[in-house]
Amino acid sequence: MTTQALVSEIKKKKSFLCIGLDVDMTKIPSHLSKLEDPIFEFNKAIIDATHHLCVAYKPNIAFYEAYGLKGWTALDKTINYLNINYPEIFTIADAKRGDIGNTSSMYAKAFFEDMAFDSVTVAPYMGKDSIEPFLEFQNKHTIMLALTSNAGAFDFQTLTTSGQPLYKAVIETSKGWKNAHNLMYVVGATKASYFAEIRTIVPDSFLLVPGVGAQGGSLAEVCKYGMNAQIGLLVNSSRGIIYASSGQDFAVQAAQKAQVLQLEMADLIPKD
Amino acid sequence: MTTQALVSEIKKKKSFLCIGLDVDMTKIPSHLSKLEDPIFEFNKAIIDATHHLCVAYKPNIAFYEAYGLKGWTALDKTINYLNINYPEIFTIADAKRGDIGNTSSMYAKAFFEDMAFDSVTVAPYMGKDSIEPFLEFQNKHTIMLALTSNAGAFDFQTLTTSGQPLYKAVIETSKGWKNAHNLMYVVGATKASYFAEIRTIVPDSFLLVPGVGAQGGSLAEVCKYGMNAQIGLLVNSSRGIIYASSGQDFAVQAAQKAQVLQLEMADLIPKD
Repeated sequence: MTTQALVSEIKKKKSFLCIGLDVDMTKIPSHLSKLEDPIFEFNKAIIDATHHLCVAYKPNIAFYEAYGLKGWTALDKTINYLNINYPEIFTIADAKRGDIGNTSSMYAKAFFEDMAFDSVTVAPYMGKDSIEPFLEFQNKHTIMLALTSNAGAFDFQTLTTSGQPLYKAVIETSKGWKNAHNLMYVVGATKASYFAEIRTIVPDSFLLVPGVGAQGGSLAEVCKYGMNAQIGLLVNSSRGIIYASSGQDFAVQAAQKAQVLQLEMADLIPKD
Repeated sequence: MTTQALVSEIKKKKSFLCIGLDVDMTKIPSHLSKLEDPIFEFNKAIIDATHHLCVAYKPNIAFYEAYGLKGWTALDKTINYLNINYPEIFTIADAKRGDIGNTSSMYAKAFFEDMAFDSVTVAPYMGKDSIEPFLEFQNKHTIMLALTSNAGAFDFQTLTTSGQPLYKAVIETSKGWKNAHNLMYVVGATKASYFAEIRTIVPDSFLLVPGVGAQGGSLAEVCKYGMNAQIGLLVNSSRGIIYASSGQDFAVQAAQKAQVLQLEMADLIPKD
């Protein structure tokens, strides 16, 4: 998907919501557990109920990998379901991968070609040649960890290197990589005041923002400092939406939670 | 597997060789491609021919993930084959994972419980709460990227933070994490002179060393600066061994390449 198509969809739906499909078998409604593929059935119901309220879905790959072959089958069915039924949706494989060049190429192939995700998240520690293989794919997007929403973000990401925090060095450096226009960045909502500084480095890039909701970040703050002329934000919520109810009505309840966020977003998007 | 069991095995076999099972379908002998599961058959033949010469196998997960369900099935069969037939072998899931706490727990469960690997590689960028969930598992080992063997290692890992390079800050900081005794570190062989400094921070930890062979690092140099009283090294070779021949004799040729390294290692291990 092109960035322009994503921006159009955001403006059309008045939403920059991304829903995290982090499916934990211990948390999904018990009536689903009797079905052959509870994880896929859960995702399908959530997607059917919420697709008009969001512009992106983000399965965190760990949750699928944890269930082995069953998990990968469910992931495969989920991405196919999205690509066939809702091709306007931006899909994110939240994998946080990164390895030496020829190995990163294998990961890129897995997520961009075999599973046909629009984007994948990557970790920057191994540098340029671990990320560039992902950037080669046209109209595919590589979302690099910059400043994450967890407590451990302060262990290394904010260490000072040559007068600036590491996460700024990471963003700055990545701008010089080949096909850098295919980069987006993960910036946690729990650190909204940092968005202003990040926008001075990458005014035009999309930022994927976890940490609204369960992790406590404020949507209004994120928009105040992080929004650009093309909106430039994808704000993710996972648990706050998908586990709104553990009853038969889980999908309806999830849609209601998603709608609350979508309406907030509609208010925050500047009128044309 | 306990660290002590690994050390015993190293001393018994006079080898600290780890063989990387990075199976690329385009590089394996063509006569295998007719079989139902070429990747597993390739691994099985390599393992049967080389297990007496090495102490560890390290499948890089990217290579399996790239083949989707077929790849995961082959990985599952490979780790089961190792655990059943060669329980004395130390197994490494080279996955370079890392995510927020509850998500890292899912990855740890996938590799340590479901697949029963002895160890998994992780990336440090997200800090303490992204790694500690892996460290909770007793007699399982978490191998954290410190200084990698690729060119991109110099993008961020060697940036100066508070008077020392980032990779040293990463190692130093990790020593304070809960169950830090379950940590090992990835240190590339292409940077052998760095080993002396790393040994001043973690004199007793095991180091997993990629980059000997195809990537050009010297085994003697690595041992000179990196070996400790318990040996403390696992030196990995992948392509140099497993792709020694693309003919019917691929496993025999792989064993010959492995033996060259094992004999070099036997010479470098101090006599008791």
